[in-house]
Amino acid sequence: MSLLDQAKQLDAGDALRAYRDRFDLPEGVIYLDGNSLGALPKATKARIAEVVEQEWGEGLIRSWNSADWINLPQRVGGKIAPLIGAQPHEVIACDSTSVNLSKLIAAALHMRPGRKAILSEPGNFPTDIYMVEGLEAQGLATRKLAERDALIDALDDDVALLMLTHVHYKTGAMFDMAALTKAAHDAGALVLWDLSHSGGALPVELNKCNADFAVGCGYKYFNGGPGAPAYAYVAEQHHGDLQQPLTGWMGHAQPFAFDDDYAPAPGVDRLLAGTPPILGLSALEVGVDMIAEIGIDRLIAKSRALSEFFRQELSDRLPDLELVSPTDPEQRGSQISFRHPEAYAICQALIARGIIGDFRDPDILRFGFAPAYVAFEDVAMAVEALVEIIKAGEWDQAEFKERAAVT
Amino acid sequence: MSLLDQAKQLDAGDALRAYRDRFDLPEGVIYLDGNSLGALPKATKARIAEVVEQEWGEGLIRSWNSADWINLPQRVGGKIAPLIGAQPHEVIACDSTSVNLSKLIAAALHMRPGRKAILSEPGNFPTDIYMVEGLEAQGLATRKLAERDALIDALDDDVALLMLTHVHYKTGAMFDMAALTKAAHDAGALVLWDLSHSGGALPVELNKCNADFAVGCGYKYFNGGPGAPAYAYVAEQHHGDLQQPLTGWMGHAQPFAFDDDYAPAPGVDRLLAGTPPILGLSALEVGVDMIAEIGIDRLIAKSRALSEFFRQELSDRLPDLELVSPTDPEQRGSQISFRHPEAYAICQALIARGIIGDFRDPDILRFGFAPAYVAFEDVAMAVEALVEIIKAGEWDQAEFKERAAVT
Repeated sequence: MSLLDQAKQLDAGDALRAYRDRFDLPEGVIYLDGNSLGALPKATKARIAEVVEQEWGEGLIRSWNSADWINLPQRVGGKIAPLIGAQPHEVIACDSTSVNLSKLIAAALHMRPGRKAILSEPGNFPTDIYMVEGLEAQGLATRKLAERDALIDALDDDVALLMLTHVHYKTGAMFDMAALTKAAHDAGALVLWDLSHSGGALPVELNKCNADFAVGCGYKYFNGGPGAPAYAYVAEQHHGDLQQPLTGWMGHAQPFAFDDDYAPAPGVDRLLAGTPPILGLSALEVGVDMIAEIGIDRLIAKSRALSEFFRQELSDRLPDLELVSPTDPEQRGSQISFRHPEAYAICQALIARGIIGDFRDPDILRFGFAPAYVAFEDVAMAVEALVEIIKAGEWDQAEFKERAAVT
Repeated sequence: MSLLDQAKQLDAGDALRAYRDRFDLPEGVIYLDGNSLGALPKATKARIAEVVEQEWGEGLIRSWNSADWINLPQRVGGKIAPLIGAQPHEVIACDSTSVNLSKLIAAALHMRPGRKAILSEPGNFPTDIYMVEGLEAQGLATRKLAERDALIDALDDDVALLMLTHVHYKTGAMFDMAALTKAAHDAGALVLWDLSHSGGALPVELNKCNADFAVGCGYKYFNGGPGAPAYAYVAEQHHGDLQQPLTGWMGHAQPFAFDDDYAPAPGVDRLLAGTPPILGLSALEVGVDMIAEIGIDRLIAKSRALSEFFRQELSDRLPDLELVSPTDPEQRGSQISFRHPEAYAICQALIARGIIGDFRDPDILRFGFAPAYVAFEDVAMAVEALVEIIKAGEWDQAEFKERAAVT
């Protein structure tokens, strides 16, 4: 049986098959980059039109109450919570992942007086590391990096916070959240997990792992749209001590009292700073609702089946192609990466055939398998194309080698 | 001639009359709250549908380049710049006003080592003051407040930054930007202007006044939609020394090099932190384009004419109603406020008649005259209603007195 026929058979038996039709996927495109920007849920179009035309246009300022805009950060956060193993009042949707990182790093420093180091791994997603540098320049933190197998040994008395990305953006390797959280706690440190590459596609059990803090991205597996608001989690036990420096009016206990003195709102509400971005939050809510409807368990199962189908077939047909991701699907995210010196040109050659994966500097080819809408047939066609391109040296053409300013 | 006839005559001669039709204003509503949330430009509906359906849905990840999403913060900032007396490369659209305030307060502290005080006035818009408190809790700043007539005397050797809102959100009183900026500079301090209640409706001359920093709101006079991204200005002369703590990947000189070490992008680009909110920025761009098309000079002239028409008539007919705003239109923003012990109930009684102004705790009735779409007829009808309500004591009904949790 051909690979395509195998794929069609798998699609026919796929419990999530119907959900693909609830996304707007362009004709002639195989989209394996939902781990960078999730696809558009069809329902988002009508919802955004409603927010713009009815809630903003007709309701105007009244919609802060009548359309309950004022509670959108809590409402969307509360819907994300069960998908990441948290309680609804522990999660809020607001700002960007970067800004939320800064708030929670500062919160951790406040809770661990006398400790200044923020421990992470080199090669973590850059913004995570950069946000520590911002606090370091203010004299508030010290950046400390250790390779992943040396992290536990690096947990000394100066480490206030262990800050890691659950699934590595480039390799897809997944940390053992429970084990690392326990090791950090044993060393007196707090833990912050960046769920950008796991939330909405993989098993995340923040409460069970005793995680202290987490942040995550709205525009990847939650399909919230380009630059969607992010989310932040703070374990209930820390709500009393929670203090963060971006003390804006929306995080005030009584924002409309217009008092001169800041008094924090209860719990994660105090993570809010400015006025919530209603268009972005409304689009994110549709994406989150769909992921919740499908259910994380089914998404995980399909994610693993898709990525294994891809990995096994390529391993058979291109045995020399270097796999960067873990072989065991339970050890990785919903993505597979390979290393190739011509990764950029190969990525361009794939795009020329309508297959969108992505390239990460300097030599990584990355393919994401957003389980809500990627079909096995997509995967089979991507395999065939990749094999053809690499075997034919098709990538070795000038048009594919020109480097774009932004990838 | 009746007030309504006078208003109709003024509308007939209004050079901006045609622009009202380019906004979606609900039937039966007189909207005098554009200073809180601007109205919906009709063009925004089609533009947002295009961004969602074509750019996101069809273009997917490619739109960061093909739709130039990656430059939206700079493009929108560059369009706001001439409307606030700045050069295009001095302004960027990003994050919220609150978050931008924190960045620029921290930047000022970095440029004035040895000084810690941030001077403002009590009763400034709360988020401005609260953002100082966040830095104060980190030991980085000291909050210092002085009444407006005592500000210049309060500029001592410890003041790093004078931070003021150009037009007061409650009273509409406008500061003399040139004089206060000069006084601060003479005392060795920098100046940050919050333009939330002036940008897009009033004369703002940041460069001419030698202003160092500014922030402003996208959802008031720029009609960018609920919770629209804000903007930030840094005078060119400070670009070399500019350092702010929210050092996210989008503010990196080469975000897609994914380097472990932060290196700031040139100029105001380093104010970026996370991934830009594309829906919000796209809506904001439409609003800014319309304000730019109408032109600030014409907006100013109409704003003053509208608010004077309102003030003079009420002064004649309700001489006891206490005006909180300056009588001279050149000394105030595009708004008029009155003090009344029953302000809340009066505001509710107006809303019951379809006239939307707003209430600000504890006793302020505030009316905004967004010059792009408010007509003289709106103003005349609001005057008639307010006079009737107050003369008849109509506000003294239980239904208008119940206090909403959020106003």
